[in-house]
Amino acid sequence: MDVAVVGATGYTGVELLRILVQHPQVNIKVVTSRAEAGVSVASVFPNLRQHITLNFSEPDIDVLAECELVFFATPNGTAMTMVPELLRKGVRVIDLSADFRIRDAQLWSRWYGMQHACEELLAEAVYGLPEVNRERIKNASLIANPGCYPTAVQLGFIPLLRNKLVDPQSLIADVKSGVSGAGRKAALGTLLCEVSESIKAYAIQGHRHHPEIVQGLNEHSDEQVNLTFMPHLAPMIRGIQASLYASLLSDATDIQKLYEDYYKNEIFVDVLEPGQSPETRAVRGSNMCHIAISRPADSNKIVILAAEDNLVKGAAGQAVQNMNIMFGYPEPSGLDIVSVLP
Amino acid sequence: MDVAVVGATGYTGVELLRILVQHPQVNIKVVTSRAEAGVSVASVFPNLRQHITLNFSEPDIDVLAECELVFFATPNGTAMTMVPELLRKGVRVIDLSADFRIRDAQLWSRWYGMQHACEELLAEAVYGLPEVNRERIKNASLIANPGCYPTAVQLGFIPLLRNKLVDPQSLIADVKSGVSGAGRKAALGTLLCEVSESIKAYAIQGHRHHPEIVQGLNEHSDEQVNLTFMPHLAPMIRGIQASLYASLLSDATDIQKLYEDYYKNEIFVDVLEPGQSPETRAVRGSNMCHIAISRPADSNKIVILAAEDNLVKGAAGQAVQNMNIMFGYPEPSGLDIVSVLP
Amino acid sequence: MDVAVVGATGYTGVELLRILVQHPQVNIKVVTSRAEAGVSVASVFPNLRQHITLNFSEPDIDVLAECELVFFATPNGTAMTMVPELLRKGVRVIDLSADFRIRDAQLWSRWYGMQHACEELLAEAVYGLPEVNRERIKNASLIANPGCYPTAVQLGFIPLLRNKLVDPQSLIADVKSGVSGAGRKAALGTLLCEVSESIKAYAIQGHRHHPEIVQGLNEHSDEQVNLTFMPHLAPMIRGIQASLYASLLSDATDIQKLYEDYYKNEIFVDVLEPGQSPETRAVRGSNMCHIAISRPADSNKIVILAAEDNLVKGAAGQAVQNMNIMFGYPEPSGLDIVSVLP
Amino acid sequence: MDVAVVGATGYTGVELLRILVQHPQVNIKVVTSRAEAGVSVASVFPNLRQHITLNFSEPDIDVLAECELVFFATPNGTAMTMVPELLRKGVRVIDLSADFRIRDAQLWSRWYGMQHACEELLAEAVYGLPEVNRERIKNASLIANPGCYPTAVQLGFIPLLRNKLVDPQSLIADVKSGVSGAGRKAALGTLLCEVSESIKAYAIQGHRHHPEIVQGLNEHSDEQVNLTFMPHLAPMIRGIQASLYASLLSDATDIQKLYEDYYKNEIFVDVLEPGQSPETRAVRGSNMCHIAISRPADSNKIVILAAEDNLVKGAAGQAVQNMNIMFGYPEPSGLDIVSVLP
Repeated sequence: MDVAVVGATGYTGVELLRILVQHPQVNIKVVTSRAEAGVSVASVFPNLRQHITLNFSEPDIDVLAECELVFFATPNGTAMTMVPELLRKGVRVIDLSADFRIRDAQLWSRWYGMQHACEELLAEAVYGLPEVNRERIKNASLIANPGCYPTAVQLGFIPLLRNKLVDPQSLIADVKSGVSGAGRKAALGTLLCEVSESIKAYAIQGHRHHPEIVQGLNEHSDEQVNLTFMPHLAPMIRGIQASLYASLLSDATDIQKLYEDYYKNEIFVDVLEPGQSPETRAVRGSNMCHIAISRPADSNKIVILAAEDNLVKGAAGQAVQNMNIMFGYPEPSGLDIVSVLP
Repeated sequence: MDVAVVGATGYTGVELLRILVQHPQVNIKVVTSRAEAGVSVASVFPNLRQHITLNFSEPDIDVLAECELVFFATPNGTAMTMVPELLRKGVRVIDLSADFRIRDAQLWSRWYGMQHACEELLAEAVYGLPEVNRERIKNASLIANPGCYPTAVQLGFIPLLRNKLVDPQSLIADVKSGVSGAGRKAALGTLLCEVSESIKAYAIQGHRHHPEIVQGLNEHSDEQVNLTFMPHLAPMIRGIQASLYASLLSDATDIQKLYEDYYKNEIFVDVLEPGQSPETRAVRGSNMCHIAISRPADSNKIVILAAEDNLVKGAAGQAVQNMNIMFGYPEPSGLDIVSVLP
Repeated sequence: MDVAVVGATGYTGVELLRILVQHPQVNIKVVTSRAEAGVSVASVFPNLRQHITLNFSEPDIDVLAECELVFFATPNGTAMTMVPELLRKGVRVIDLSADFRIRDAQLWSRWYGMQHACEELLAEAVYGLPEVNRERIKNASLIANPGCYPTAVQLGFIPLLRNKLVDPQSLIADVKSGVSGAGRKAALGTLLCEVSESIKAYAIQGHRHHPEIVQGLNEHSDEQVNLTFMPHLAPMIRGIQASLYASLLSDATDIQKLYEDYYKNEIFVDVLEPGQSPETRAVRGSNMCHIAISRPADSNKIVILAAEDNLVKGAAGQAVQNMNIMFGYPEPSGLDIVSVLP
Repeated sequence: MDVAVVGATGYTGVELLRILVQHPQVNIKVVTSRAEAGVSVASVFPNLRQHITLNFSEPDIDVLAECELVFFATPNGTAMTMVPELLRKGVRVIDLSADFRIRDAQLWSRWYGMQHACEELLAEAVYGLPEVNRERIKNASLIANPGCYPTAVQLGFIPLLRNKLVDPQSLIADVKSGVSGAGRKAALGTLLCEVSESIKAYAIQGHRHHPEIVQGLNEHSDEQVNLTFMPHLAPMIRGIQASLYASLLSDATDIQKLYEDYYKNEIFVDVLEPGQSPETRAVRGSNMCHIAISRPADSNKIVILAAEDNLVKGAAGQAVQNMNIMFGYPEPSGLDIVSVLP
């Protein structure tokens, strides 16, 4: 199958290429970048030497339309300008940016600071969290690939909410992300010398992923959730670790077993044994989300711990997982990657 | 003034030496280490070359008793075997280990896995958090220097509790520590290759600092607090970042102003401007604790953010601050260190 | 094919498992560790969850002998005690330790501080650098898998020496290694807090890989080489970067072209374009060795730059490459891994 | 004494401020930055909270001229446009940029890509390496503060050259720098995700510090030196480690003793004991340069190892050392800083 990747000079883009060049059913036909048009992909990303011979090209709707599937790994606000025409031409789209994740166009505008270019597609877009939406993904034309934080936080909280085990008003997500989540662009704030050997909370007055997470969690709760979401920048390249806190309504349930059952058919969600704690290095480079349940001593809260690679299950890997579902390939196709540890 | 440092081969010990060699009123007379006895301090810690000419020596009560003050930077369980005799000899003691931090000997034994060797001193020991106990510290013979996590968490939560602004049952402390908090000893778990480029929660079923924090917070609350404390290991050498969550009882108070007022006379607690977020690098090597107040969008919680250097305000710096108070030196003496940034 | 891995709790061992679980022709039948016998492999290495269900077992010659091939990922001095019997039983062996790398038993003893247990096998063992010894590897019973430093330094220098382009007395190898090269064992010297945010030369009076490199280079030089080899510990997990200096005998040759030709049939040696510099991240997790040629301005030396992953091309990957050659599998089988970047 | 810092938003600038705010004889009167004019210094550099209350201001010659000394921590090409007028007004200048380091204006232009604005001052400027030029520094009006690489390489090689112990044609400097050497500016190439967990040589066809080093070394050699200089980017914030190779002309001299004697009166150059290896963390934040001598086994070369903090002895600390010499202050004034280790 021929696919295109639009905007492939970012970290999400190169990660998508890393996975796709090894995918048995995929031929990467077009890789676009306005900035690097004419330059060989492998010269920008030397890990792809011997794996890809393409040059970056200018994005061109007609060329993209020759593919069966187009991935957008572009900054927010770009996909929405090109997707309508691609869909009209019968191309399916997986958008890794935030353009189609929020169904409420006004809410989207408030957080993303621009008018939406094709509000009419927001209802049609399928939120690409396979563990929730697998059936709808199969036939979707347009996938809104979830954000990195939202993937970990939703996978962690949903079993509690669906089973009405916690107070929906009590949710706290303290989440730590590697620096690659901030993208690959010249910026002062993500220089090694600015973020190495340090940790901090950021976007402390509100982060764009908050409404996305709340939208997702509300689908699993009768009562509207109240979520306190605090993202942190951790001094590492990859990985998201989420510590999720909630007030238990009752202590009757074996939550460990509940999670094991809830995810027993999910190949990319792995519930660890009691006492274990997910660490991001164990999922680095893989599409796995590791989850553990903790009841700390003398605490009245339940704590769900989740770890994923922000660029894989939090972005490119999940996109490929969605592609596999859309096109009827085995769901792990191209994603059977063992994490590099150490 | 002559001082001794017992057990100075750990990270707390070398940090104490770094500060003391620059302290205008202090002469380091004895530095002990059973393992390194006879070896020059500067050969183990090359940053101290030209600043200290002593060799490590075996600990000897009589030699220690020639000093006015003895610091213990030993593993838990050591200080309590030597402190009683030193006190009898009229020597004052600052213990950087956990031996005298918990007033309830049974509780201490449960968490530290041994019998306490001198329970009778637990009531006499003064918990060395100057912002809380300055007056008692002045005349103390025995200081229990607080743990690194407890310092940040207490400094963050106390103003809220004292002013009855939050539900004492709702406290959550999600705290991230650099690896130096685990100490300087041959161990698999803190090898660079095991903890670099990764983050995880640890001690997820209960951490020894939990009872210390709860004991401290209860002093500022009519109602017993319930604290969920989740420590995390961050891939960096130094620093503690605490994100502290609580349910506000009312929204009437200007919490920013309350914190600014509460700490306005504290030279080592600095309340940042609204919107700023404490980062550990800004306090690296210094005795400062930076605190900020956050009200994230669409959240029903207040979030207090605090950052300190775990080895300074969380250990050796606070010990010197206590010494300065005990001996009537200016409180910043030897501690007027500007953080190294970047 | 059934294989065994002896001593798989180190970094070389887990890396070997990472590659072998994805190898289409291999079944891992036995994974041994005295220290972890009875423990599941995946609980020690959580990246292998879902990929391996074995437990570690005690090493047992009879059990190992049921495999066609046994890998030793043991500390130096272990393989030599078990290999003779395995060979007698018709099992082929790839030893990733140093036991069979030096053909001169006395020289080996001098550097490794013990008597060799089976000197008679030193002549029989084939040094497993495929780019040099591919034909001999095919039929070898016992492979001495090269060290990490020797792989990069030899691949870098050999084309110059074979073509008599440089003075064999002028060789300098300034090489930087990630910390995983020091192995996975409780040790003070490789704690994150001891080696992070710092760089230093080590083994400055002589490193064990020096005689191995010299032995290898001498095979390609009429005159005995003199090599100054200075290893450095770089603050990162993986990777070796070698800067190799030599005095050119003449300036007549196009060295760029010479290297491109020399390695044009080697799938795991990739000569970069002029002006590029190999960086270790571009080969992280892959079996590639990137090489570049530099003629710095106003210098009378040629500089060869090489980068590899010390655990892959410098250890486990090269072992699998040797296995593929020995058993007639396609040489890239199981090794077609794209580096994880960033 | 009133001083000004021009261009203080870079890493050299903030480091200069860190040192100067603690200097007993200095009052920082003006801190300029065109980009941040009007902004408080402490809001850009939170480590300076409570230590400096100034705002950045636009550079203004008349305001600067009210100071006795002006430091330039500006990008190359800026100081040379302002220095002539300041000198005319009787202000003394220490330029931390490269504008006055190369005495040959044509050579300077070739490497720095611009015309020099005041060639006539190149002869007057004193190269501020105190260990070489202390007497001339005392009365200098204009100091060209050395580059970070040149400081380490010159301090390492000079004793060998002055004593004619090595072949001046055989010099190789393999030097590793932390990322802060690349400066504080929005750039793709120094993002954490681009340079962390990786090491590489860079500027492999020639680096601007090459002519500066050669100029300096030639002053200590009858014969013109030939230097191969290869800089590397190491994945850490601070520190320079230089491994310096040369061919010994004779083996008669006790080189260890020679270095100890050569530097015995230098407070900021510390010759380590035989067998020790300088590590950058031992000098982090301090003005020390650690040097060691190595004769690796079976090598025909001498190896000098040197470590410094690129921002201190390699920049801001050396600038303050120069200031102390110029103004008759004790040379360690403000520089008696113990490195932060770990």
